[in-house]
Formats: sequence, structure tokens, C-alpha cells
Amino acid sequence: MELYLIRHGIAAVRGTYTNDDERPLVTKGISKTQEVARKLRSIGLEFDLILSSPLVRAFQTAEILLEADLSSNLEPFTSLKPGGKIQEWLHWLQERRNNNSLNNLALVGHQPDLGNWAEMLVWGSIRNQIIIKKAGIVGLRLPDSIEVLGNSDLFLLTSPKWFI
Amino acid sequence: MELYLIRHGIAAVRGTYTNDDERPLVTKGISKTQEVARKLRSIGLEFDLILSSPLVRAFQTAEILLEADLSSNLEPFTSLKPGGKIQEWLHWLQERRNNNSLNNLALVGHQPDLGNWAEMLVWGSIRNQIIIKKAGIVGLRLPDSIEVLGNSDLFLLTSPKWFI
Repeated sequence: MELYLIRHGIAAVRGTYTNDDERPLVTKGISKTQEVARKLRSIGLEFDLILSSPLVRAFQTAEILLEADLSSNLEPFTSLKPGGKIQEWLHWLQERRNNNSLNNLALVGHQPDLGNWAEMLVWGSIRNQIIIKKAGIVGLRLPDSIEVLGNSDLFLLTSPKWFI
Repeated sequence: MELYLIRHGIAAVRGTYTNDDERPLVTKGISKTQEVARKLRSIGLEFDLILSSPLVRAFQTAEILLEADLSSNLEPFTSLKPGGKIQEWLHWLQERRNNNSLNNLALVGHQPDLGNWAEMLVWGSIRNQIIIKKAGIVGLRLPDSIEVLGNSDLFLLTSPKWFI
């Protein structure tokens, strides 16, 4: 299956909201994310499901993907909050894969978690050397029958600059 | 400095030329590579230098980058031939960096070497888990003052499908 990790778009500056979880996307963040979403759709991409961090800047990003017809299923997922653990959503994913086929899944979240998760999936350890910009995307191919950690392939890493 | 690894475009089928080194790009390979080159230029990219495997399919790819004004310097480089060793061109690179500044370098070559080299630069070992399609690009940021193997950042991995 293919797993896409998508970082939220450009949001209000940290510190400008009492509750950091409520920082929304700024206008430029919305428009760039919309461009990214349209481009993904024009390539023919469709996600069986989008799971998103419940934080405002992430969930708004996920809603933009939904509005661009990249999926008809979007759910908030607590494990994708900043500092979330890969084991939490991997556990969910393995159960889901055992019960239903899942060809394309998108996770919308935050740095450095997304980069760390990509590194764990591909190389099995975190090195902080995968750079994901805002509204940037990572594409991974997860193996079907062996452990996904350390055995997934990396086929895409791009930021809006290189994409739209 | 930024290092771009670029795989040659779609070439004539293996076995159709007595000497495999002479397989040229096919028409589709030329046009897709031209589109990739134009997009790279439109983003504002410029290479101080392009080094290319001397094999026809690679050198043609490099010439397309040159024609798109991505650089004014192109040289064949034997170490970029299939099976070439990273230490050979890294040695050249370190000497060059000691003598002159080099901000942007593009290497045009072959798989699986390019993917292996990217993995060695980022993680210090080869896992065959970075997928580079024909006319695909890898973007790496090499550190200035420490060993580049195992310490470089990965900021771009894309194929024409996701790029043009």
C-alpha cells in the first residue's frame, strides 16, 4: 500500500494564539495547500482515507484535500498530534489492513514527527535528515507481508516549491 | 551545498544495441526530460556544474539540462558510469570544495547507483529503498564542515509524474 505523509500548510505565527492547537492556516497557507491539492488530484491521486491531527492547522489542511476530491473520508486521529508515537497509528493501520484492503492512506500532521516516521519506516531509525516543508509531501510504499518499519520504500519527497 | 542526482530519461530497450553504453534516449525520454528541465529552470534552479556519466543515455540527459539553461558547464565523469563508486567522485568533490566554492552540483547517472549514493549520504549505508524513476531527481544538502556520508539532508525526491 501507499502511505502519504502531508505536513500542514503555513499557519499563524507560534505564540499568537493562547492555545497553540488553535493556530489556523494563514491566507497564503490556504492558497498554497489548495494548489498542492489540485495538483495531486490532477495526477490522479485518490486516498481511501485521510487521517489528520486534530489541531486546527492540520485539520484545515486535511479539509482542503477533501474539498479537492482527493478523498471522501476524513477522520481526526489523536496519535497524529505533535509528539504522537508511530506505534499508535501503526497498530491501528495493521489491524485495518488485516480487516480491509487499504491501497492509499494519507496522514496529515506535523514536523518533526512526519519526517521521523518516514525515517523509521524506511531505515528503522530516526536521523532528522528528511526535510519536509509546510504543505510538503512524503510518499512511501509499505510492504504487504513483512514488518513495515525499516522495510518501506521512499518514492516521493517534495515541497510546494518543487511541486506546484 | 546542494547536490542533485538526476537519473537519465527513458532510453532504448536494453539489448537493442550491441554496446549498451550507446543506447540513446527514445523520443518520449527526450520530451519528458525536456519538460523536467524546463520546470527546474522555471523554479529558478541553476547548477554551477553538471557532471554526467559518459554513457549516451545519460550524457543526452545532461545535454538537455544544459540546453534548458540550467548550467553552462557540463563535463563527462567516468566515476558516474554504472557501478561507479561514490568514493571516487566524493574525493573529487572534496578537493573541488577545498579550492573553490560550489553551491549547486548536478550528477547525471544511473540506477541503482544514484539511489545507493543518496542513501549513503543521508544514512551512511545502502538499503535500496530510495526509488528513482527515469528523469527523476534527488535533492540533498551536504554539510560544510563535517563528513558528508551519513550527515546529508534529503529535501527532494521526485519523478516526472510528480514534477512536470
